[in-house]
Amino acid sequence: MALRRTLVAAGARAMSQKEAQRQCAKLSQKWRLLAEAEPQGLQLQRSFQFKDFGAAWGFMSRVALCAEKADHHPNWSNVYSTVDVTLWTHDAPGLTEKDFALAAQMDAIAETSGLIE
Amino acid sequence: MALRRTLVAAGARAMSQKEAQRQCAKLSQKWRLLAEAEPQGLQLQRSFQFKDFGAAWGFMSRVALCAEKADHHPNWSNVYSTVDVTLWTHDAPGLTEKDFALAAQMDAIAETSGLIE
Amino acid sequence: MALRRTLVAAGARAMSQKEAQRQCAKLSQKWRLLAEAEPQGLQLQRSFQFKDFGAAWGFMSRVALCAEKADHHPNWSNVYSTVDVTLWTHDAPGLTEKDFALAAQMDAIAETSGLIE
Amino acid sequence: MALRRTLVAAGARAMSQKEAQRQCAKLSQKWRLLAEAEPQGLQLQRSFQFKDFGAAWGFMSRVALCAEKADHHPNWSNVYSTVDVTLWTHDAPGLTEKDFALAAQMDAIAETSGLIE
Repeated sequence: MALRRTLVAAGARAMSQKEAQRQCAKLSQKWRLLAEAEPQGLQLQRSFQFKDFGAAWGFMSRVALCAEKADHHPNWSNVYSTVDVTLWTHDAPGLTEKDFALAAQMDAIAETSGLIE
Repeated sequence: MALRRTLVAAGARAMSQKEAQRQCAKLSQKWRLLAEAEPQGLQLQRSFQFKDFGAAWGFMSRVALCAEKADHHPNWSNVYSTVDVTLWTHDAPGLTEKDFALAAQMDAIAETSGLIE
Repeated sequence: MALRRTLVAAGARAMSQKEAQRQCAKLSQKWRLLAEAEPQGLQLQRSFQFKDFGAAWGFMSRVALCAEKADHHPNWSNVYSTVDVTLWTHDAPGLTEKDFALAAQMDAIAETSGLIE
Repeated sequence: MALRRTLVAAGARAMSQKEAQRQCAKLSQKWRLLAEAEPQGLQLQRSFQFKDFGAAWGFMSRVALCAEKADHHPNWSNVYSTVDVTLWTHDAPGLTEKDFALAAQMDAIAETSGLIE
């Protein structure tokens, strides 16, 4: 318990819902803020629709690099041309700056990866 | 309805549950046959656990090539070192030889991709 | 020798230089036709310049799917944001329709992968 | 010139040949130390041979994550099942700890990616 508090204090402070809404407003309007039941806390969700599997896969391949670099990995699923993403910070638990940074990178990468919607 | 029958007749015949069980027995024991409610019919499901995100991603990168080559794409989700896969043939609807071929390729690739379980 | 002729006849006929020039004119102007010394025969070459490693890697990840699907793989090199490609058909030896098909796919993918030049 | 010295001083000091040989001895014996003409200085080179394109691509996909994470990217080429790698630090110029760290990661990843030799 003491350890947990230390980890959270060290850099994974969950945002308040108000702050999360403020950050969410800077992203593509397709992101949704989900107020999940505990223990996860708030989550951030978006669906990306590409032209085909190749475009979806190119997007995922670029995002994978960002995720590994930030050591912050998405919960995502794919079937053919669709990529569904849910972000949150396991340690917080809830949303932190890392989630919004990754979401913004996904928005930018999707724009140059053949995004349809 | 007539169109649907034509598509199915053209090469995506769903297997009977008995035949699917026989095919499933040839795969890793970790695959589960799910008898879903209609309209999807039977589905094939497995979870792969790797050492870390890199190993999971290397596995997915190899499977993506197989999927695109066979023009048969999985429904899969990933979070960090875990890859959850659900296979079925949308057109059938249910399980066909394509699903079992892809499942067997996934088993083989996982074995040389740092699979933990 | 008889075997070699059979293989070539079966689907990997090398194009004449004149025909290759005609096909090359349909691609991006950045492709160059190289008249190499035997035994490789003609080769097709292009350099792609992206914004950063991530964009270059997204491009390569999409092209890898096309290459595996066509069972026709490029000779390519990468350093950071640059991807240099050389295409030819080993069996022909020289250029065949497969090379021009892959080159056209690369052009199209590059256009939606953050290509700079 | 003053700027260049500053960059080098800031963290990209090229190793002496003796130190590079000592580091190289810790890697797979397949790595070769190349004493190139200036301006690149020393380089580190290895060829990886996999079973097929899929295995080679899975290896590259995992290495790409490491490279992006360390912000240190290889000079590499691929044709079908072969991946040829040349490492050096552009800023030094020559070999630094970053090159040997990436080389060691490549060795480890290759071992669990279907490496043949």
